[in-house]
Amino acid sequence: MAGSFVPAIVQMGFAGPVYPVNPRYQEIHGLKCYPRLLDVPGDVDYVISSVPAAVVPQLVEESGRKGVRAIHFFTAGFSETGEEERAELEENVIERAKALGIRVIGPNCMGLYVPEAGLAFSGGFPREKGTVALVSQSGANASEFVSSGAQRGLRYSKVISYGNAADLCEADFFDYLAGDPDTEVIASYIEGVRDGRRFVAALKKAARAKPVAILKGGRTEAGGRATRSHTASLAGPIAVFDGLCRQAGAVRVESMEELVDMAIAFRTIGRLPGPRAGVIVGGGGRSVLTADEVNSEGLEVPPLTEETQRQLREFTPIAGTSIRNPVDTMAGWGGNQEEMRRTLEIVAGAPNLDFVLYMGGGPPGPWRGGPAGPHDPPFDPAEAAQRQVRGLAEAQAAAGKPIVVVAGTPSNAEGLAYAQALSEEAMAGGIAVFASARRAAVALARLRLRQRLLAD
Amino acid sequence: MAGSFVPAIVQMGFAGPVYPVNPRYQEIHGLKCYPRLLDVPGDVDYVISSVPAAVVPQLVEESGRKGVRAIHFFTAGFSETGEEERAELEENVIERAKALGIRVIGPNCMGLYVPEAGLAFSGGFPREKGTVALVSQSGANASEFVSSGAQRGLRYSKVISYGNAADLCEADFFDYLAGDPDTEVIASYIEGVRDGRRFVAALKKAARAKPVAILKGGRTEAGGRATRSHTASLAGPIAVFDGLCRQAGAVRVESMEELVDMAIAFRTIGRLPGPRAGVIVGGGGRSVLTADEVNSEGLEVPPLTEETQRQLREFTPIAGTSIRNPVDTMAGWGGNQEEMRRTLEIVAGAPNLDFVLYMGGGPPGPWRGGPAGPHDPPFDPAEAAQRQVRGLAEAQAAAGKPIVVVAGTPSNAEGLAYAQALSEEAMAGGIAVFASARRAAVALARLRLRQRLLAD
Repeated sequence: MAGSFVPAIVQMGFAGPVYPVNPRYQEIHGLKCYPRLLDVPGDVDYVISSVPAAVVPQLVEESGRKGVRAIHFFTAGFSETGEEERAELEENVIERAKALGIRVIGPNCMGLYVPEAGLAFSGGFPREKGTVALVSQSGANASEFVSSGAQRGLRYSKVISYGNAADLCEADFFDYLAGDPDTEVIASYIEGVRDGRRFVAALKKAARAKPVAILKGGRTEAGGRATRSHTASLAGPIAVFDGLCRQAGAVRVESMEELVDMAIAFRTIGRLPGPRAGVIVGGGGRSVLTADEVNSEGLEVPPLTEETQRQLREFTPIAGTSIRNPVDTMAGWGGNQEEMRRTLEIVAGAPNLDFVLYMGGGPPGPWRGGPAGPHDPPFDPAEAAQRQVRGLAEAQAAAGKPIVVVAGTPSNAEGLAYAQALSEEAMAGGIAVFASARRAAVALARLRLRQRLLAD
Repeated sequence: MAGSFVPAIVQMGFAGPVYPVNPRYQEIHGLKCYPRLLDVPGDVDYVISSVPAAVVPQLVEESGRKGVRAIHFFTAGFSETGEEERAELEENVIERAKALGIRVIGPNCMGLYVPEAGLAFSGGFPREKGTVALVSQSGANASEFVSSGAQRGLRYSKVISYGNAADLCEADFFDYLAGDPDTEVIASYIEGVRDGRRFVAALKKAARAKPVAILKGGRTEAGGRATRSHTASLAGPIAVFDGLCRQAGAVRVESMEELVDMAIAFRTIGRLPGPRAGVIVGGGGRSVLTADEVNSEGLEVPPLTEETQRQLREFTPIAGTSIRNPVDTMAGWGGNQEEMRRTLEIVAGAPNLDFVLYMGGGPPGPWRGGPAGPHDPPFDPAEAAQRQVRGLAEAQAAAGKPIVVVAGTPSNAEGLAYAQALSEEAMAGGIAVFASARRAAVALARLRLRQRLLAD
């Protein structure tokens, strides 16, 4: 894994020189390799360390002599091992780095992914930049956030994996991102806070400047024990952390999936005008379950007015449908695009609704389940997704209310390709897409929560 | 949709004669078509009705003269419309059917999927039979359960979609399935109960004979309103329904996904020996989140004994790992099969654990994320899944404790193919596979709940 930093940075198009350092090689990934840091001919600003912990003190001394400004220690085997000797080593390294004027990220972390600067800690991350930042105490969780979010259309400004936080810590990063003009949304995975008072101040500053979502690792007793093994963090009671978040105006989520969902909700919807959902769905049983899922998160599914029902009834048959809310029309099954468009327009325009939850984000036509007919044209997921998003974006703009799409879980390769194309297109078109009604409702309710917290 | 019953039944291999009836056609799907039911030459036991509601009284009369024993009314447009006239029609139809000695399934439902009898209400359902039954008030939810469960290896004895329950109702079906030798597990989607006392008696009988999981539609105020539009059901307060389930020894779930998860847990694990999980996972942050997810459902992740840790340390490096529980070894990343096998064996054998949660169900090798190398053999999902399940089943048998697998959400076509192959193989090998640690923990906690309810 250590060897993957060099190709990741080269692949990202880092503009300055990259100097691999390793006494055993002449060349690494086509770049000339130097036996020691001091042998590097040019100036070095930033060091990525994957030497064993025992060699780290020597690397710090050489970095000092070389005028290095920051070191990222991928190197693990420090305080997180729980061994006193290794915790002391970590302390000494940080103390010495400080004396030499060097700031440290880590140890025991993946460091930085900053597409604009050409920095990355893993291959395959998007090269283009975006506006979502991540502050993560776990490298693997950071990778999962970047990858799964990228598949859903997210792009990133700055992603920071900071591990044991022996020098630079969450407060420093929140403080920085609060004022970072490239960052519009902040997501975070935190196991433990180094300095409670500084953290709250920085979080408050950040959460008032832009939306912040935090996944707290170690919210249970067993999880708290795991944070000590992982990053030597003391997790603390979750109720206390929750209180800090509320005080600061940040929302807390409970899984990586929810963290990505929340970043998507912030990016696409931002502000939810009110709690009243118009739900458009195919199938009576799904209507019931969707209403349950929306309502149980504190959002509402009010009956449509008689006037709205009258408009829907003009083209909706009476048997096997409902036009009360959820709206279950045959249009959803028959694939009648024009009727679906009218349904969406009427529901989005209803006077007593604040947003629409459209459960029709699954792939169109026979890809809903049965096999394609022999005379059906080949299915083009990208084209179908573009068409779908265009229609939704028009309806959203016309109504001036968010239209939130539920795409479901794909069960075959075409469905998966469509779901991914839809997510990417939707992000570009400002439409929020979620995998299930429950996940949509959870994210939407948290948008409302944030608005309430900041209004106080 | 109406027209899909004939091909579905023919495709399922129904043994007796099938007589399409429709005055407008000479032939339907290659079968001779009759203008009226009375024109059918042979005896008719079972009628599937998709005529409009207005024609139903005539169909009932003809059925009576033909000696029909049961009618399934796909026909909708009765009491669920909320219109008095249509509710009356439903009442009259049921009364007349009873007088003629005909039992009714529905109206407003999909009817029966019984692979052994060659009955189905949709194309593409598995032809081979299994041991899971479903009692569902929604046809679309029944289809979703059958399809998504089938992809995860479930096979079915009897699936009943019963809609408005105007004659035969949930109590009749539970009563029947309690004694059905082909059924080992019962899942159910219910919106409202026709006769509370009969329901509790039948549910109790069923839940004591075999495991029962129920998804209650209409658990919120908005969902309850939707059940009235859907099947004219009065949902009632969820706390009351919950109390009935607990009293009977059935477990209640909150989504279709959870209903499938629960059927899988019942089929593969059945009984969970205790609450103490050994968690094997790759990555420190994932360790923390998995411990949180397991612990927050009331299951435990106790520290491993010193002896177990000593055994793991023999081959597990100290940096970047944890051997306390969750167990995060480099084996998970490097793909060292032998070390992973030993890890699994040691954790499954640990004296203070009741089961293992193995987070390594994602596709092996480069399919975890990065691209495959040019010299890698082509990936064979079925072969890889077979190998994985064989190893897990051996470890499970050796330890005499459940090994529960978390497979994650696939992000590409290979991953999806592998996940589906793994699920099918795992079901055959008696290994439980779930999409996430949270969903596994929820299902496992409900196994424990059922055990407690039945011990009372």
